[in-house]
Amino acid sequence: MSTFLDALNKNNKSHIPVWFMRQAGRYLPEYMAVKNKSNFREMSHTPQMMAEITLQPLRRYPLDAAIMFSDILTCLEYMGAPFEFRDTGPKLDDHGSHVLSALKPLNPQEHLNFVGEGIRLIKLNAKVPVIGFVGAPFTLISYLVEGGTSKEFIATKRLLFSEPKKFSSAMSFISEQLVCYLDYQVRSGVNAVQIFDSWVGVLSQEQYEIHILPHMTKLISDFKKRNPSIPVILYSQPTTHLLSCLAQTGADAISVDWRSPLSYISQQIPKTITIQGNLDPIATTLPWEQAKPHVESVLKSARSAEILDRYIFNVGHGVTPHTQPETIARIVDFVHTFKV
Amino acid sequence: MSTFLDALNKNNKSHIPVWFMRQAGRYLPEYMAVKNKSNFREMSHTPQMMAEITLQPLRRYPLDAAIMFSDILTCLEYMGAPFEFRDTGPKLDDHGSHVLSALKPLNPQEHLNFVGEGIRLIKLNAKVPVIGFVGAPFTLISYLVEGGTSKEFIATKRLLFSEPKKFSSAMSFISEQLVCYLDYQVRSGVNAVQIFDSWVGVLSQEQYEIHILPHMTKLISDFKKRNPSIPVILYSQPTTHLLSCLAQTGADAISVDWRSPLSYISQQIPKTITIQGNLDPIATTLPWEQAKPHVESVLKSARSAEILDRYIFNVGHGVTPHTQPETIARIVDFVHTFKV
Repeated sequence: MSTFLDALNKNNKSHIPVWFMRQAGRYLPEYMAVKNKSNFREMSHTPQMMAEITLQPLRRYPLDAAIMFSDILTCLEYMGAPFEFRDTGPKLDDHGSHVLSALKPLNPQEHLNFVGEGIRLIKLNAKVPVIGFVGAPFTLISYLVEGGTSKEFIATKRLLFSEPKKFSSAMSFISEQLVCYLDYQVRSGVNAVQIFDSWVGVLSQEQYEIHILPHMTKLISDFKKRNPSIPVILYSQPTTHLLSCLAQTGADAISVDWRSPLSYISQQIPKTITIQGNLDPIATTLPWEQAKPHVESVLKSARSAEILDRYIFNVGHGVTPHTQPETIARIVDFVHTFKV
Repeated sequence: MSTFLDALNKNNKSHIPVWFMRQAGRYLPEYMAVKNKSNFREMSHTPQMMAEITLQPLRRYPLDAAIMFSDILTCLEYMGAPFEFRDTGPKLDDHGSHVLSALKPLNPQEHLNFVGEGIRLIKLNAKVPVIGFVGAPFTLISYLVEGGTSKEFIATKRLLFSEPKKFSSAMSFISEQLVCYLDYQVRSGVNAVQIFDSWVGVLSQEQYEIHILPHMTKLISDFKKRNPSIPVILYSQPTTHLLSCLAQTGADAISVDWRSPLSYISQQIPKTITIQGNLDPIATTLPWEQAKPHVESVLKSARSAEILDRYIFNVGHGVTPHTQPETIARIVDFVHTFKV
């Protein structure tokens, strides 16, 4: 009985499900209370804290899914690429293309046991489906090569363009580890998984087709072989130019940004694929009366595009530290009572 | 006798014209030689230096256009919002929405006389058309509000969403000043102008239609009333989701990023509008043999889209400090000898 899973199965007949990327995060005072007494590493490496933080937004809001509190970079530490969280974002002291050749295989059961334990604790307490996740190979490579977030991803793209074989080997190797990690998350209890390819939108459609699509297709198909009933959501941004490619990866759902309307997006994505997202995350930083027209516009667009049996309300990028908790409450209520 | 102007008039029958955004820049040793003995403010405020730097790439390469060396923020100083160039980019110490209400009118003849003088010096020495430019109102507002470049433009978008009237007033006021400034550049000798809306791609198509399009249409139409024969090029990125909007601004040419192929872009833009750009700037950082397939792919796509009478080769975002001077030479040669 979950509208979230029903929507992923293109068969939702009830209210529109809603969750928010980064719903367990800095806009919540209870999150900051934990963070001020701890640090990101401890919070994501301690099963009890991971579960507590994951559950915080669910206590406030009747959200339709929980997403395990963790980071896409967490697994890299155990592949030989440790990172630190600084105020400006994650930082990998040792970075560059040489790091790719030195990556070690991941043994999730051994290395990421705390994640499995955290998922089990979440499952004991969450009444809604739990989403596991990984960063996509391209996005992880961008951190390994740039050493942090980037604006133009010059080093990553230079590597891709000038050493496509090296790049492809790294994509393959990382994909294999991610399949194991996702599989481990499923065995620990998650009900769906999301792959965050947060920065792949810097590539052109053509480059995506040549260098990314084959790896994503294999990653998703390998995962599906082991877990045929677990839905896979694929996120990226900017999304508009990649829609037709993303639709070919085998993902059950595409999580889109806010740049194009759902009327356009739904034309680029076959009816067999669920659509998630589309709200500009900045709308969540506004008082409800100002946020409302943005939410309403997305929902009306979803209705006129006739995708309500396969649509999940979400933001097009994570909510921000400026997000207003009260606005999130009103959005959840508005989405749930929207006349479908 | 200029293929650049012919292409802007949709009537090019000769070789494909080529120039590069930021062609006078840090990848050139002769630029660095000037920069190491000076600073950005002096370089852009001294007519002789401005002309010298503008002409540097033209001495190396048979480019089809020069673009005056200046910055989109230069005019803001004289509107009451001074900035500094730091290693991390431009920085406005006083920034925020209050700055918008305090902006003063620009008197280009008085304030930006050094730009006019620089243009006259460039015109004395350049054998190709000279491009003047401004930053678009949205992009300038984003600097005034954020205080520098930004990743998510949260403050700018919050202002736009929560105080649309204040935002719109600022757009109108800045547009009026920009029309005067562009007009002054034309009277000083430029043959075409480019409007850089470098960051507007963070807005959705719907937001662009409501909040940006009316202002851009008015800006361009006001400019055209005074200068009917001077072509206007409009740049932004990411471009894909905005193409149909940009085509409605009245711009003579749309400068596009690298994300979508010209085959798609040309379908979204009417035949009455010239198309510029599409090369991924990272290709210019590669040795020629590696860059060549990228250049060839863009040119072949332009040919099969049948836009060669109205196409200008360029990058989809400025060239970088890592750009290889030799690769630029080979690209220019390849574009010029490409069988149209």
